[in-house]
Amino acid sequence: MTGSSFDLYGIVPPVSTPFTESHVPDIPSLERLINFHLDAGVHGLFMLGSTSETAVLTSAQRVQVVETAARIAKGKVPIMAGTMDMSTDRVIENGLAAKQAGAEALVVTCPYYIKPGQGEIIGHFRMVKEAVGLPIVAYDIPFAVQTKLATSTVMTLAREGTIVGIKDSSGDDGTFRAWVIEARTIPGFRALTGSELIVDGMLMMGAAGAVPGLCNVDPHGFVKIWNAVAAGDYKTATAEQDRLVKLFSIISVADSTRIGHTASALGGFKTALMLRGVIATNVMGRPMGQLTDAEVARVRSIVIEAGLLDE
Amino acid sequence: MTGSSFDLYGIVPPVSTPFTESHVPDIPSLERLINFHLDAGVHGLFMLGSTSETAVLTSAQRVQVVETAARIAKGKVPIMAGTMDMSTDRVIENGLAAKQAGAEALVVTCPYYIKPGQGEIIGHFRMVKEAVGLPIVAYDIPFAVQTKLATSTVMTLAREGTIVGIKDSSGDDGTFRAWVIEARTIPGFRALTGSELIVDGMLMMGAAGAVPGLCNVDPHGFVKIWNAVAAGDYKTATAEQDRLVKLFSIISVADSTRIGHTASALGGFKTALMLRGVIATNVMGRPMGQLTDAEVARVRSIVIEAGLLDE
Amino acid sequence: MTGSSFDLYGIVPPVSTPFTESHVPDIPSLERLINFHLDAGVHGLFMLGSTSETAVLTSAQRVQVVETAARIAKGKVPIMAGTMDMSTDRVIENGLAAKQAGAEALVVTCPYYIKPGQGEIIGHFRMVKEAVGLPIVAYDIPFAVQTKLATSTVMTLAREGTIVGIKDSSGDDGTFRAWVIEARTIPGFRALTGSELIVDGMLMMGAAGAVPGLCNVDPHGFVKIWNAVAAGDYKTATAEQDRLVKLFSIISVADSTRIGHTASALGGFKTALMLRGVIATNVMGRPMGQLTDAEVARVRSIVIEAGLLDE
Amino acid sequence: MTGSSFDLYGIVPPVSTPFTESHVPDIPSLERLINFHLDAGVHGLFMLGSTSETAVLTSAQRVQVVETAARIAKGKVPIMAGTMDMSTDRVIENGLAAKQAGAEALVVTCPYYIKPGQGEIIGHFRMVKEAVGLPIVAYDIPFAVQTKLATSTVMTLAREGTIVGIKDSSGDDGTFRAWVIEARTIPGFRALTGSELIVDGMLMMGAAGAVPGLCNVDPHGFVKIWNAVAAGDYKTATAEQDRLVKLFSIISVADSTRIGHTASALGGFKTALMLRGVIATNVMGRPMGQLTDAEVARVRSIVIEAGLLDE
Repeated sequence: MTGSSFDLYGIVPPVSTPFTESHVPDIPSLERLINFHLDAGVHGLFMLGSTSETAVLTSAQRVQVVETAARIAKGKVPIMAGTMDMSTDRVIENGLAAKQAGAEALVVTCPYYIKPGQGEIIGHFRMVKEAVGLPIVAYDIPFAVQTKLATSTVMTLAREGTIVGIKDSSGDDGTFRAWVIEARTIPGFRALTGSELIVDGMLMMGAAGAVPGLCNVDPHGFVKIWNAVAAGDYKTATAEQDRLVKLFSIISVADSTRIGHTASALGGFKTALMLRGVIATNVMGRPMGQLTDAEVARVRSIVIEAGLLDE
Repeated sequence: MTGSSFDLYGIVPPVSTPFTESHVPDIPSLERLINFHLDAGVHGLFMLGSTSETAVLTSAQRVQVVETAARIAKGKVPIMAGTMDMSTDRVIENGLAAKQAGAEALVVTCPYYIKPGQGEIIGHFRMVKEAVGLPIVAYDIPFAVQTKLATSTVMTLAREGTIVGIKDSSGDDGTFRAWVIEARTIPGFRALTGSELIVDGMLMMGAAGAVPGLCNVDPHGFVKIWNAVAAGDYKTATAEQDRLVKLFSIISVADSTRIGHTASALGGFKTALMLRGVIATNVMGRPMGQLTDAEVARVRSIVIEAGLLDE
Repeated sequence: MTGSSFDLYGIVPPVSTPFTESHVPDIPSLERLINFHLDAGVHGLFMLGSTSETAVLTSAQRVQVVETAARIAKGKVPIMAGTMDMSTDRVIENGLAAKQAGAEALVVTCPYYIKPGQGEIIGHFRMVKEAVGLPIVAYDIPFAVQTKLATSTVMTLAREGTIVGIKDSSGDDGTFRAWVIEARTIPGFRALTGSELIVDGMLMMGAAGAVPGLCNVDPHGFVKIWNAVAAGDYKTATAEQDRLVKLFSIISVADSTRIGHTASALGGFKTALMLRGVIATNVMGRPMGQLTDAEVARVRSIVIEAGLLDE
Repeated sequence: MTGSSFDLYGIVPPVSTPFTESHVPDIPSLERLINFHLDAGVHGLFMLGSTSETAVLTSAQRVQVVETAARIAKGKVPIMAGTMDMSTDRVIENGLAAKQAGAEALVVTCPYYIKPGQGEIIGHFRMVKEAVGLPIVAYDIPFAVQTKLATSTVMTLAREGTIVGIKDSSGDDGTFRAWVIEARTIPGFRALTGSELIVDGMLMMGAAGAVPGLCNVDPHGFVKIWNAVAAGDYKTATAEQDRLVKLFSIISVADSTRIGHTASALGGFKTALMLRGVIATNVMGRPMGQLTDAEVARVRSIVIEAGLLDE
């Protein structure tokens, strides 16, 4: 029913979008970051996710990001592209552009700014699927879009083949568990967690994969958890996750009276990537502010403690 | 300081965007609606507001809406255009297009999907002002964008001349009162309420105007409140507002298990306008559903009771 | 139907509960505070409100507070007592104790900790009314109890005579307006606002009275607004309210990293009352912390600026 | 440091409080329920939890419940008692009464109705510990009390020995993971999850135990998960959890327009226990409504499907 050979599982980083000092995408840095992920053995790439600052990219910049991924990674791992936008017609515009740029699947959230009902959300996914034709992964992220995908909405869309998977960033363990159970009965349907902090537990209980923002900074760590769980070595998986939990504190070093939560978290990832030599700057898309030198120093000590950088 | 002759006050409808059966803007209906407002004596037009379903319009459709308003109303009343979007660069793109299409001022919200801090929000408004050059009205609508404009943010932007007014749809009487008081000390700065239900009280205590979505359906009613308060006739103002409170129940006739809050409310307005013969359909932008025949009948009886339609 | 001569209108302070250094009610200070309110011409007393720190008082202390009010003010103004608690049986226990202690009416909120439905809430009010027999004022304060009283719930209870009034601290202008309109058709039913900042507007549009926490600090100011609106002198009402808006900033001088919102706000009131010589300390009920000397100094300058204290 | 032999781990049901038709605790039913849990091999008893409807019990009824547990289970498993209340002095009153009635440890939430800061919360726990003297388990349940325990608050209290454990019902996997990691470094400190739906995953990654409301209905199932994880048999643990996830749907069979969320969920548990013959009625504490015959029939079919009842 899903009409696609697109196969979604494993560790799939929502790839950060590096910027130049001029606040536009830094393509050489993005190329290095994608290769960094491929070298670490990730199983797919999610371009234009929330972590990618998709919300601040213009339509032209979004295309540029997907084209870069397709150029480097196509045929190596599956490439998904986010289509974040407020309405069906806007998401279709974004989806067609991403398809043209080389995306093999779309990631679609609930419409936002408006407050749709679940019936309208079901219609939204169907119309996008019909218009664009690529496999669709639903993305449950009420923190950003304000509306939660109902368990029944996801099941309806999964059973009829409108979606081939769900990325759950809702933090609602109950609905995610329901989808994991459901996924066992739907060939090809996959439930992936957006959690960063209990990936071990989620994989052990049946999640098909994980899409953690923190994976940008340490893809090797998350791939290690994946491999350990697959091998039944839960002790290694848990120890590795514990290490990554500590690393995750890089998201909150920024002064919260100066910059908001998104800039603090995504800027923490970018800062660590800059310190690891993968990308050139920790510049954020406007209006988001970047971490100061003092904050960079605090990220550095956390990254060192996590064993990712020499002192 | 505001560098503009743009003068914002009074009753300013956030003009609905009528659609054809094909879910695209219905320009002849929009023309009738604008003329309906002008005939009622409104003091300005807010195109591309939340009530206008701006969130579901594509960039090209947004331009079309502003051009229509400019063609009909330019020189008669001030024309503002919303720029709703997630980031500074996207809002600047929208703002430049609206300016080109004839808007005389921009309405700018807090960025959304991301969670900016107040410092980043201040930077956002300054960058948009710098790049587009039109007068800017800030729009506080946390229900849609999730972040509230702080009292101090609005005051900073007002004092330095980055914004010439604020439309408050936060429902927070405390911050609005603070802005009304502040506005008394800043030449040209105006605080308008987005309330539909206590416009009388808000005007009596010093609001410079009102931008109620319900004004689409009965602009004469809101203009009557404005004139009554201006004349010191509070009894008439309150009686008229009481009548409009009852009319406002058209926003909740739709079955909430079928369509969401936004479609229910904005669709209620469109249905009433259709029944009054001003626009052709009550079709909503996708994915939003429209009111059913049974629901239209319920709107009809409310509109009749409000004295806006013969039985 | 309300079966009571209890008449609720005008300015009704939710009387602060002063504490000694030992964190128990300071009865001599409470006596002075009640007399301060009576001298200012308030129209009723609300003992055991949210502002009274009822949540931190033991059952025995609550009785002590009501007895004090009855001893001083009975027969001069109506005396209401809050019954804040989590369930019907607990509220009935509190209500019977308050009745015994001299309360002439009860103030009853929605049960909390649990999440009741509106049908259960209606049952709650009916059972409390049946068991205690005093007139009941419903108190809508979702900020504290998490559940909002629906418009229809209040109307059902008002029409059948279970409640004689509503104190609205929901901040939802729409539901309050609906109750004000409804109140016009129900003999003896009164809708009072808990707003501190738009009391002028609320009274102008038909509220029967106001129950502002800030009234503790400056009852003369709120009585002046009441009298001005009654006399049709809206200019005076608005000017006085503007003054009180500035005074209200005493609620946020405390360091929010040290103490929580409730201690900051109610402690601001107590500090101003201490500075005005009405009560002995600004001690709060445990576990709430009190304002520091530096914070007291900031309150002092605000109180001076409001004209309530000589420099 | 914790100064106690109280040892908290494993499966700990938050024991339901059965009621008679007169809405008072049904002690014979409670005795049967406690024995049902002991027979199933639970590792402790949490009396007066949220699931126990503690919020609707009077002080006298709370004592009665703890006395019943002490009479039956003392010396067999550890017995904890909730102290849910709004302030320090009220919690101390409750805690002393529970101690007198036989509780071996207290469970203490953040104060509610008021909005305390984290510093005030720390003070609250210290004062309760000082006054009552029993071991304290912190209970993070922002859904009910509105304030979340900060990671740092729990760590401060754990390190100094004020608390011996944390029950996490926040749904925040990140803070819970942090406490699990922290617990490894603090002798005797235990982090238990209040999750019902991912107990397998939580135990696998290091939780010391689980306190699921659903455990009332099927303690054998949760004990089976515990034993399977302990034996390294993750497949069995996950299969059993999957079965319990389906059983959990008993919490939402009630008509949400008739009764609220708490009555629906806790009433679902009571209905299943009634159907299993453990307790006499599915009556709830007032004002909560009970499930109707039709709803009971729906619970019955779910309980049958879960293998807990013959058709």
